[in-house]
Amino acid sequence: MNHYMKESIDQFKEAHLNKARFLIKCPDQPGIVAAISEFLYNHDANIIASDQYTINPEGGQFFMRVEFECPDLNTKAATLEAEFQPIATQFDMDWKLLYVSQLKNMAIFVSNEPHCLLELLWEYQSGDLMANIALVISNHESSRETVEALGIPFYYIPANKSIRKEVEKKQLELMETYQIDLIILARYMQILTSDFVDKYKSQIINIHHSFLPAFVGAKPYERAYQRGVKMIGATSHYVTNDLDEGPIIEQDIGRVDHRDNSKDMKKIGQTIERTVLAKAVKWHLDDRIIVHDNKTIVF
Amino acid sequence: MNHYMKESIDQFKEAHLNKARFLIKCPDQPGIVAAISEFLYNHDANIIASDQYTINPEGGQFFMRVEFECPDLNTKAATLEAEFQPIATQFDMDWKLLYVSQLKNMAIFVSNEPHCLLELLWEYQSGDLMANIALVISNHESSRETVEALGIPFYYIPANKSIRKEVEKKQLELMETYQIDLIILARYMQILTSDFVDKYKSQIINIHHSFLPAFVGAKPYERAYQRGVKMIGATSHYVTNDLDEGPIIEQDIGRVDHRDNSKDMKKIGQTIERTVLAKAVKWHLDDRIIVHDNKTIVF
Amino acid sequence: MNHYMKESIDQFKEAHLNKARFLIKCPDQPGIVAAISEFLYNHDANIIASDQYTINPEGGQFFMRVEFECPDLNTKAATLEAEFQPIATQFDMDWKLLYVSQLKNMAIFVSNEPHCLLELLWEYQSGDLMANIALVISNHESSRETVEALGIPFYYIPANKSIRKEVEKKQLELMETYQIDLIILARYMQILTSDFVDKYKSQIINIHHSFLPAFVGAKPYERAYQRGVKMIGATSHYVTNDLDEGPIIEQDIGRVDHRDNSKDMKKIGQTIERTVLAKAVKWHLDDRIIVHDNKTIVF
Amino acid sequence: MNHYMKESIDQFKEAHLNKARFLIKCPDQPGIVAAISEFLYNHDANIIASDQYTINPEGGQFFMRVEFECPDLNTKAATLEAEFQPIATQFDMDWKLLYVSQLKNMAIFVSNEPHCLLELLWEYQSGDLMANIALVISNHESSRETVEALGIPFYYIPANKSIRKEVEKKQLELMETYQIDLIILARYMQILTSDFVDKYKSQIINIHHSFLPAFVGAKPYERAYQRGVKMIGATSHYVTNDLDEGPIIEQDIGRVDHRDNSKDMKKIGQTIERTVLAKAVKWHLDDRIIVHDNKTIVF
Repeated sequence: MNHYMKESIDQFKEAHLNKARFLIKCPDQPGIVAAISEFLYNHDANIIASDQYTINPEGGQFFMRVEFECPDLNTKAATLEAEFQPIATQFDMDWKLLYVSQLKNMAIFVSNEPHCLLELLWEYQSGDLMANIALVISNHESSRETVEALGIPFYYIPANKSIRKEVEKKQLELMETYQIDLIILARYMQILTSDFVDKYKSQIINIHHSFLPAFVGAKPYERAYQRGVKMIGATSHYVTNDLDEGPIIEQDIGRVDHRDNSKDMKKIGQTIERTVLAKAVKWHLDDRIIVHDNKTIVF
Repeated sequence: MNHYMKESIDQFKEAHLNKARFLIKCPDQPGIVAAISEFLYNHDANIIASDQYTINPEGGQFFMRVEFECPDLNTKAATLEAEFQPIATQFDMDWKLLYVSQLKNMAIFVSNEPHCLLELLWEYQSGDLMANIALVISNHESSRETVEALGIPFYYIPANKSIRKEVEKKQLELMETYQIDLIILARYMQILTSDFVDKYKSQIINIHHSFLPAFVGAKPYERAYQRGVKMIGATSHYVTNDLDEGPIIEQDIGRVDHRDNSKDMKKIGQTIERTVLAKAVKWHLDDRIIVHDNKTIVF
Repeated sequence: MNHYMKESIDQFKEAHLNKARFLIKCPDQPGIVAAISEFLYNHDANIIASDQYTINPEGGQFFMRVEFECPDLNTKAATLEAEFQPIATQFDMDWKLLYVSQLKNMAIFVSNEPHCLLELLWEYQSGDLMANIALVISNHESSRETVEALGIPFYYIPANKSIRKEVEKKQLELMETYQIDLIILARYMQILTSDFVDKYKSQIINIHHSFLPAFVGAKPYERAYQRGVKMIGATSHYVTNDLDEGPIIEQDIGRVDHRDNSKDMKKIGQTIERTVLAKAVKWHLDDRIIVHDNKTIVF
Repeated sequence: MNHYMKESIDQFKEAHLNKARFLIKCPDQPGIVAAISEFLYNHDANIIASDQYTINPEGGQFFMRVEFECPDLNTKAATLEAEFQPIATQFDMDWKLLYVSQLKNMAIFVSNEPHCLLELLWEYQSGDLMANIALVISNHESSRETVEALGIPFYYIPANKSIRKEVEKKQLELMETYQIDLIILARYMQILTSDFVDKYKSQIINIHHSFLPAFVGAKPYERAYQRGVKMIGATSHYVTNDLDEGPIIEQDIGRVDHRDNSKDMKKIGQTIERTVLAKAVKWHLDDRIIVHDNKTIVF
């Protein structure tokens, strides 16, 4: 990490030292918001932002994200968590308390096309992507120079279908070593085994180069061209064991016309891909996403 | 009002009989959300949706919209309001409690171009614009047939600069008679006096045919063509005494190119105008908008 | 047809009496543009607009649309066509000469949801859709009043899978009687037989309520909701015997989020559907579309 | 220039060795297209793409862009130009013949914010921006490393209002030395004198960080925030002596809401700025733009 980025990150941590976020999911019933807001008030915490959503208001599922500021959060964290547990139990909550100044450790996997990786590195350098990019793994050497120039470790791990287990073993060791919280598949063209995926549930974000569910699978731009569509798109989603079927985080599209062949579509699409992936990553880092069934709630 | 619409409205009222919304504005301080959610919980109300926003979290301004459901709301309304008052006083709140089943009385003012009026009537007929369209006022006869076919009273009031006072006198009497809550200027090409505007602060919505603040004033499409812009737009805003300077509710744009002359731009723009106005009207009817200084918070 | 529309149409015809358009498709080779433009120049025609496109410039397919103005076109039409034939033969052209003042006879088929029909009627009334809407056919009575109010014949033909042949026999007779050039399926929820489709190749435009090829077939909004997409769309296309697989003319999308259930998506989608269909119809009426293989070239 | 880019450029030149484009502007009259296409046919040139536009078809202005392929263009260029002159004279044409393989020499001026510069360098590296980036000039040192890493000369020329003449003298010398065809102001925050601007008419492209004509001048994001707009934009235009009043090439916008302060708007805006500038630069390099009065025709 170079000096400028280190300074930017230190400033961010300092500025957000007393900030945290609850992400909560539980069966809906009266009194949840009252209980949470009273809890925070009683612990001298001031709510900065609060979002909630209920599926089927009566008897349905309740979701909430609350961001708050609390003096001396550092020293109070353990107490807060312990004292929130009875409320969580009472309402049968699936919950997390996330501290804004504790940056997530992020790994980026990339293959030959660098545009999504470059976008993430750009945002990182600009101070707009607040994570600790711990390492980049690629099955090609081509991005090494760019990555290492930023002081980020680069691991070249050749990969193909026949050596998948072995490759993933190395990758998983690195995930352990760097204590990775979030894995970004920035156009990584290898399929992960279910063993790998299960270890990082809702922690692996992929970018697919079509507006899913159109063009699931390989070569979407070629197929878009064959079909004669008038718009192409990209989709960021959490990875599950069903290829391209995981919970969608964000999608966007761009216009094409009869003049665009599949190569043109690919160029147009790359701009969409990098924007859509960067949004999804930022929302995840901001703890804005709750996964429910096979969908995302993005607050 | 024809039979189908009456039925649709009755169904809506029935379905939302126990629903209401708080719109709240006050200085920020700890405990506001806790106080409101506890109040609702203690009155057996279940929060359906809640949005909040704070300008400058420390020492700033706090805004909130809470939609809730409360059994027998009808009979409890007076009690609720009375018992909320101490909380409102404690936090120095500017607040409103709005009952979803009490439809707002709406007047539409229109001149010669009917597209915005027609869009509103369309949404009304489709059951997507839940208001009581009490009357339409126009300085042209051209829309009478369309309006009266829906059973809505139509008033032809010729208008021009020299008879403005007299015209507004008639209009204000009608506003009184029909107990109007919301006035829509659906391409009404007359300027209202400050006497009129002051009586309906944040209750008059206008559609301006440019992406404000570009092309304030007359003939925006002609000026857009002269300037050679590559996109044109429309802006819906609350009317204030500064022409085209009121709080913006919604804006949108469309692309144009060198082939489009000002007449083409007008055609393209009309589709944008009607969409942008309809959105603003619906958000107002859903009590989603809080005006602060010269801006809107749209929850 | 009411008086106002008749006047508007007469004005249009008068203004475009001397205008026509070539739509041309042929194998690419040098000299095509020179031959066509020389031909027009020699017949005193002035080119107003010209678009061309070549797939694979060398040895590929050439497409062209030329709009021109020619004094006394009326009396010269037969000569023009006869004298163009040798050029067409020389270059092996698939060609049409279309006279702008000869409005196309259009039939609209609709089922229960009227929004697309209403949009087309709206554009028609505004003078923006220059066709002769000869009749509306529906398997529901619900739109009769609206259609007949504009002086357009309305035919109620109940339809279901088991009586398809019989239904289509009646419909085809009406197509003959009214000499229909273009059929719009404005959310007509019956499948046409291949006999019907083959008679009107590239003359039937459908609107499908998804961004094809996503959600081919029934209930796209329900399936979009189930999949958790972040955008929904609509697609207008020419009808072929492969359901929802015909050449795409236009597509557009709108954003949705976790708060939108399938009913909300349907509402949001209806606005997209009507816009996308109206664009496709106008482009067809303007002779802007050439179908090639299973794609459209839209000039 | 590094090895990879050199190779990519050499391939491009090789592939387009026989391609050229006419850009033509003249009074409209019959026979122009015929004359041009016959000329090309007689010189064994095959038209690849052709666009034309006429303002006021009768007695108006005619514009055309024709891209063609001609064997041995290299050796025939002088002849082609000489033999086209009589046609140009006959129709009173303002014309250019541009050879695709002769890359334009481009200078980029930048101040402290690097995002637009970085976007252009990115496109350049990806082989999507086919120009010879001859040098970068900045009044800050901050981008030196990035620029020089690509083998592009970087000149630090401190600048402020009081030394403008002297600064421009140095800059103009560099423009001469490098035989610059196109100057990009990639967020260069100094105003150019009319002496400078007059030397490079329709050859200087600027990016302004608002949807002009809204927020002409300084600090558009701050003013957008003050006004409470719901969308912000960016505009690329040729530089004239009227600040922010030159011919607009491209514009785009992004949505903002009440949660976005001027700093957020700036972040959102930077993405729009870099996209809008890159598009304008590419269109200029592809010889797609004709300037007429104070507008652009973009083919």
